[in-house]
Amino acid sequence: MTRERLYLYDTTLRDGQQTQGVQFSTTEKLRITQVLSDLGVDYIEGGWPGANPTDSEYFETVGQIAPTLAAFGMTKRAGRSAENDDVLAAVLNAGTPAVCIVGKSHAFHVSTALGISNDENTENIRASIAHIVDQGREALFDAEHFFDGYKSDPDYALEAVHAAHAAGARWIVLCDTNGGSLPEEVGHITRAVIASGIPGDRLGIHTHNDTEHAVANSLAAVSAGARQIQGTLNGLGERCGNANLITLIPTLLLKEPYASAYETGVTLDALKGLKAASRVLDDVLNRVPAKQAAYIGSSAFAHKAGLHASAIAKNPATYEHIDPALVGNSRIIPMSNQAGQSNLRERLLRAGLEVAPGDARLARILDRIKEQEARGYSYDTAQASFELLARRELGLLPDFFEVKRYRVTVERRRNKRGRMVSLSEAVVVVKIDGRKVLNVSESQGEDGRDRGPVNALSRALAKDLGPYQHIIDDMRLVDFKVRITDGGTEAVTRVIIDSADAAGRTWSTVGVSANIVDASFDALLDAINWKLLRDGAEV
Amino acid sequence: MTRERLYLYDTTLRDGQQTQGVQFSTTEKLRITQVLSDLGVDYIEGGWPGANPTDSEYFETVGQIAPTLAAFGMTKRAGRSAENDDVLAAVLNAGTPAVCIVGKSHAFHVSTALGISNDENTENIRASIAHIVDQGREALFDAEHFFDGYKSDPDYALEAVHAAHAAGARWIVLCDTNGGSLPEEVGHITRAVIASGIPGDRLGIHTHNDTEHAVANSLAAVSAGARQIQGTLNGLGERCGNANLITLIPTLLLKEPYASAYETGVTLDALKGLKAASRVLDDVLNRVPAKQAAYIGSSAFAHKAGLHASAIAKNPATYEHIDPALVGNSRIIPMSNQAGQSNLRERLLRAGLEVAPGDARLARILDRIKEQEARGYSYDTAQASFELLARRELGLLPDFFEVKRYRVTVERRRNKRGRMVSLSEAVVVVKIDGRKVLNVSESQGEDGRDRGPVNALSRALAKDLGPYQHIIDDMRLVDFKVRITDGGTEAVTRVIIDSADAAGRTWSTVGVSANIVDASFDALLDAINWKLLRDGAEV
Repeated sequence: MTRERLYLYDTTLRDGQQTQGVQFSTTEKLRITQVLSDLGVDYIEGGWPGANPTDSEYFETVGQIAPTLAAFGMTKRAGRSAENDDVLAAVLNAGTPAVCIVGKSHAFHVSTALGISNDENTENIRASIAHIVDQGREALFDAEHFFDGYKSDPDYALEAVHAAHAAGARWIVLCDTNGGSLPEEVGHITRAVIASGIPGDRLGIHTHNDTEHAVANSLAAVSAGARQIQGTLNGLGERCGNANLITLIPTLLLKEPYASAYETGVTLDALKGLKAASRVLDDVLNRVPAKQAAYIGSSAFAHKAGLHASAIAKNPATYEHIDPALVGNSRIIPMSNQAGQSNLRERLLRAGLEVAPGDARLARILDRIKEQEARGYSYDTAQASFELLARRELGLLPDFFEVKRYRVTVERRRNKRGRMVSLSEAVVVVKIDGRKVLNVSESQGEDGRDRGPVNALSRALAKDLGPYQHIIDDMRLVDFKVRITDGGTEAVTRVIIDSADAAGRTWSTVGVSANIVDASFDALLDAINWKLLRDGAEV
Repeated sequence: MTRERLYLYDTTLRDGQQTQGVQFSTTEKLRITQVLSDLGVDYIEGGWPGANPTDSEYFETVGQIAPTLAAFGMTKRAGRSAENDDVLAAVLNAGTPAVCIVGKSHAFHVSTALGISNDENTENIRASIAHIVDQGREALFDAEHFFDGYKSDPDYALEAVHAAHAAGARWIVLCDTNGGSLPEEVGHITRAVIASGIPGDRLGIHTHNDTEHAVANSLAAVSAGARQIQGTLNGLGERCGNANLITLIPTLLLKEPYASAYETGVTLDALKGLKAASRVLDDVLNRVPAKQAAYIGSSAFAHKAGLHASAIAKNPATYEHIDPALVGNSRIIPMSNQAGQSNLRERLLRAGLEVAPGDARLARILDRIKEQEARGYSYDTAQASFELLARRELGLLPDFFEVKRYRVTVERRRNKRGRMVSLSEAVVVVKIDGRKVLNVSESQGEDGRDRGPVNALSRALAKDLGPYQHIIDDMRLVDFKVRITDGGTEAVTRVIIDSADAAGRTWSTVGVSANIVDASFDALLDAINWKLLRDGAEV
């Protein structure tokens, strides 16, 4: 059975950059381009040349790429020819194979925002598209507010898109610019456009997530006949974001009726890089990855409920809609006070610890977890601390070193220039292999600013661990989360630390105490012990 | 025109708690109950009595509430009667007006997860529902994996839900447990259930967001005839979360065809509290609110694109799908601080500070807030710190006292009995009325345990403030929240402190620094200064 071709158009670099607080550098844009290219999208919209200096620079440096590169701009303004519109000229000057221009298709916007007549607007669309086609480029028309426009004045909305179609646009993209449309009306209106004479394989869909329907609206348009989807990595975009390609791609490749009906440029092999692709964008934006993101979130295949976990152990298909490996993700069976022994055995197995069903130590581990959770610990995310706890109960945790004492001081006072400054200093005393080692460290970042007591402790602790030093040298602290929680009768502080090493591993540890410094120190100790264990340090 | 009644069933406290890392205390559950009650949901599912100690405690303490309270459990097990099933008995013993039990409706799960025959499973459903109805309770049946079950064995899936219906269940809830179904099939299968003889006004829908379709699937079921929607605040829930009631509610109330066709228990007046309701859950979970969340995210009505912002200035309807005020949200236009100034004047007025429109100091305050926010401060909740900032710019902040320096030490070492203990000690030097005062304090709670460096600092600071001491004597620290956030180029720590006094006032202050102790100290200073100001301390 031949499948119809469905095209993916990425606008992370253009509409994605409309997100509050987002401004990509050229280097970042090139990095994202590589990710999109490896994934196999068909088009990359790189920006609006002339409107933004980094956009112009991007088009100058990007060079040859596998996807079709598109520059974005707007229809020529009224009162001048397409040839003489300097804004449109700047867009064409970027020299991209494809050019996408946005124009009005909603009569209310033509009068309110532009203040021109419908006829003038239609002519602006026609002339702009014709000019792009004349230059030998592939022309796309983003019909702004198309769905709202169609609902208020269907005749004019159709006139606008037919002008672009007649002028030779390869794609007419129906945009739900304000994100307020719902799937049934998107399907119904897309069908009406096809019935009016524009074939579905010339139609694209561009949606926003203002009612959590960006993905559903995109699929509704495809079911109605549209054959291009515009979206962004992680759904980045203005207001609530654009359609999320990271969700749409696996749905199109793995779910029916789409998998059998359509073919995209993304292979099942490239799909395995989906989670990594999503993480690159988080990394560029310095964002903590969304745990609950569909398909690729770290919680997307996390099974907490005891009933679910025991069924998963029998057959993963019981509580998983797809195999997580298909998108480069993996299963997590978190520990919690709802968990049973089967849950625990499954999680131990993942840590390379095989324990027979009914082993008395399983009950001991569960009791110990329950005790610790009552004190405020949480092992759901702190997998590394869970492993250390389990190994201790199983008699499989070596004593690499012992902390004899520590002291950390934070001081705020005036410096020589009379400015208030703060300074943290930590002393840690450890015993390794019978030898006492005393380390001291201050805490100043590269900018000379104090990074606080936890940083000072972390540095002092990792300064000289004797025979283990070479193993921990590549460790770094990547995140530090603090929350006040109930620990029995009083509030305590729970600290979760995420660490990483040069091999690209990341692991999470937990510490709890009424004293935040103490809690942090315990989480740091777990982080180091886990690293020593994993790298096979010998006692 | 009469609208049909659509029922909202909240499961934040039960399915929401299946989220990785989430474990509500009873106090937190009661706080969420109040929010749901104020919003106007019809049902609150409070937990699984007997399965979890805090769930049992919740049912003992919640008392009378406006929504119908439901306890959750599972169908009786095979080989015993419903009357003799201790798990079911614990659920009924909670004494709630409604009882919701989950059971299998997917033949594959009956054999794989339960290992019993289809007939035994059907009988478990029938007998359990009949037993609940016999006790005079409203019975709900959560048909687990219903959509997957129907796709694989429609006859058995229907047999299971008909057993519950025949036994007297008020609601049969069709669950997309694994979250893998798509709207078209949800609509089609829901219609098939109605065609098989269970009326739509007895059907509910329970979806998960594994493909970003939880909201769309819920609406597809409603369009097909279902009349109850199960969901959670902010879409909290296992893996990728449940259907988000915070998104569904405004869609049902404000968007066609739903607004004209259905009536819910949520009024347009209660809808204005939607954003606040969402924030309470974030606060309980100590989560940073999702900026891009539909309707209530802080970016949901932020207009960054220049074209959009200028059109918005002409008419907000050009780029907004609803008026943000309807859901308690507001517009953000980064380029215009005209709107900013009128908002600011309003907020100052609430703090008793009247400033004339156009006063040059308004722009200075806005600039200062922008500067501080770029450093990681947030004044959304820290009203007291906002007031101090504004007063400083207005020349209305007296200098009550000056902190010359402080030093805090945290030490962990063995005590005389050889046990590891920690101890914090703080020295704070302040200048009051030309006089230098040096205070020192340790930090031990009533149980003798160390409460950490922030507690020690707070005690030392409040130990002797000379002429002001009597004013701050009744102050106490009621909450302390810590978040890692962006402060320009580097991560910084933001501390929010909630204080209270004997008059029952509570106020919040904020401090930001790369050093957590420093950030806490600044928030403490603001808390004391605000109290002195409000109680009319004289310099």
